[in-house]
This record gives sequence, C-alpha cells and structure tokens, in this order.
Amino acid sequence: MSSTAHPGVFVSFEGGDGAGKSTQSRLLGEWVEREFGREVVRTREPGGTAMGLQLRQLVLHGEDVDPRTEALLYATDRAHHVASLVRPALERGAVVITDRYLDSSLAYQAGGRELGMEELRDLQMWAVGGLLPDVTILLDLDPALLPQRLTGAPDRLERSGEEFHRRTRDAYLGLAVAEPQRWTVLEANRPIDHLAVQVRERVAPLLGSA
Amino acid sequence: MSSTAHPGVFVSFEGGDGAGKSTQSRLLGEWVEREFGREVVRTREPGGTAMGLQLRQLVLHGEDVDPRTEALLYATDRAHHVASLVRPALERGAVVITDRYLDSSLAYQAGGRELGMEELRDLQMWAVGGLLPDVTILLDLDPALLPQRLTGAPDRLERSGEEFHRRTRDAYLGLAVAEPQRWTVLEANRPIDHLAVQVRERVAPLLGSA
Repeated sequence: MSSTAHPGVFVSFEGGDGAGKSTQSRLLGEWVEREFGREVVRTREPGGTAMGLQLRQLVLHGEDVDPRTEALLYATDRAHHVASLVRPALERGAVVITDRYLDSSLAYQAGGRELGMEELRDLQMWAVGGLLPDVTILLDLDPALLPQRLTGAPDRLERSGEEFHRRTRDAYLGLAVAEPQRWTVLEANRPIDHLAVQVRERVAPLLGSA
Repeated sequence: MSSTAHPGVFVSFEGGDGAGKSTQSRLLGEWVEREFGREVVRTREPGGTAMGLQLRQLVLHGEDVDPRTEALLYATDRAHHVASLVRPALERGAVVITDRYLDSSLAYQAGGRELGMEELRDLQMWAVGGLLPDVTILLDLDPALLPQRLTGAPDRLERSGEEFHRRTRDAYLGLAVAEPQRWTVLEANRPIDHLAVQVRERVAPLLGSA
C-alpha cells in the first residue's frame, strides 16, 4: 500500500537520456491497465502540461540561464505539473507514471558548484508541496559502457560529456542509497523484457490484488 | 553609501497599478543622469528580460495556476532578471531603478491562505541570492479614495477588487514597518512634482556629491 495520503500510486523513472525510461514507463503502464484495470496516467517532466511545454522550451532551447533560474524553471514546471495533473490523478486513485521527477533536478544540478543539494532539495520539495513518489526506479548505466562508438582518444567535448554523465550517475546513486525504501536501481543495459519484469515485481505490491 | 557589496545603487518602486510607479521611476532616472552623470538602468518586473517577457505572458495571460506555481513563475523571472541584468549593472556602478521587485510578490501573494509570508520570503530571497534594494519607495494609495467613479452600491466584483487592494496595501505597509531603514512610504495622490522631490531627497544621500 502507498504510505502517502492519497489512494493512488506514484512511480517515477530516473536515469540518463537513452536509458530506456519511456519504454519501461510504457510497458509498466500497459501492464497495470491490463492486469489491474486501474487508470494509468503516463506523463513526464519537464513539459507534462501545456504551460510546462512552454517552460520546457525556455529551459532546453532558450537563452543561457544561471543555476538558480534553471532550478526555478524546473521547479515551476514541476509545481504546475503536480498541482494540475499528478495530485488530482493520485487523489482519484490513478497510477501515475512519470518520466523524470524532482530527483532529476537534484542529480543534474547537484554537481554544479553554486547550489548545494540541501537548497535544491528544499526548493523542489516546496514546489511539489512535499509529494514524493511511492517508488522511484533508476535505470542505471555505467557511462564507461556508453562511448563504444569512440575509436580514437576522446576530444575535450566528449570527455566533458563523459564526466557530466559520470557526475550525474554518482548523484543518482547517492540519492538511491540515501532513500533505499523509495529507490530501486536496475541495470539499464539488460534486455528490455528482463527489465520490465523487474519493474513489475517492484511495483506489484503497491497495486493490491489483480 | 550603499551598504551592499557592490558600487551601484538599487532603488525599487512598489505600490498598486496606477499609483505612479513608472512616472516616478522615469523622473528619478532622468534626474540622476542629469545631476550626477551616473549610468541609470530602468527596468521592471515581471518581464525585465527577453525570457522574462515570456514568463510575464505565462503569469498574466496564461492558464490559471495554483499559488505555488504563481510564486515560482515570479521567482524565476526575478532570478533571471537579477542574474542577467540587475546584478551586473550594480557591479559596474550603475543606478538601477526597478518598477516592482520581490516585495510585490510578498504583498500580492501574502493575503492568500495557502502560502505564508515566511516561505514566500525565503523563496524570493533564494531566487535573488539575497539581493535587496538600498531603497524601496512605496507609492501608497488608500483604496477608499480609488472608486470615485462608483455611483451606486458596488457589485461583488468591485467589492472583491476593493478588498484585494486593501489587503495588498496592508501587506505593503506591514513590510514597510518591518524594515523602516529600507522603505519610504509616500502618499501617491500628491502632485507628481511634489512626489518627485520627496523621491530625490530619499535617494540623494546614496549618490555621493553631484
């Protein structure tokens, strides 16, 4: 059962781009609908709402912004996403599956020098009024396994990309260790069907009997 | 002299719409340039930057949003405004005059039931990295003096508008009382030239000799 004050179930997927979050999110949603007959709401951040799409444009394709503005753009998108879509769905008993949630902001921005993890977490928790997922599944990829396409020595940009991925992964793993009851870490380079079964096993106990 | 860690001077105007903020802001800027030969940057919130204009659209003309999202939209606009325009101008010694700053968020949102003054202030102070104006001038209007155009009994919308203005004014006056060294309260229904002189007298000591 969910330990939170709503009859729904809230699942977030986290991990780097290309780790398979949207595939596993879709497979989980189809399985929940098929096996449990429950309403499933699949969504994502940033950009899970109409306003969020405009904020997503500002974040991903707008002018360069400083770290505080960036954190606030994500927090604004998230606050609106939670207030207008996630929380109402949970309150009517739906299973909400989101591709990224507030842990993305912590993992991606935590490596920077200007903002600490504590203040980032305080901001994001305030934005969502304290709403955390019942389960967060990290699709974890070792960045060292990624650049198999590289033949020669990596250039500066490729190296900085690898360092960025490594820092983000370390931050994700740190978050998972700190809250083991919420997080489940899966190796993202396993076969899709194998991963889907692991995801189901983690979520099933929250869904009641089929 | 400014007590803050920059060589500039930071002045904000606050008050209801129509109180004369932009007029007094313009007159003060012209006087500072003419009499002191200092660089003047006149700006406003929300919407003092290119990204801010898009956020302003979302705030003022977008879908209805909950109080947290609204506070975060203003905080995002403000963070970007400060990081990209206000702080750089202050650091090169300019006199920055803004039509609204973080006190607007506190005065306008403080009356709501969901968010307390403390958490609103914490959010806005975080957004601006602690940067407060050297002087904040409240152009104060008694809402009772406003609806002279009303002839019959006010309808529900007009009454709610008057209550809103009264609550906002009370919040502004409360902020001014709490920080008397930063705030100056002027009666906005005085003649423009009379007000302009009062504004100059308050700002002059921060500008050094002409």
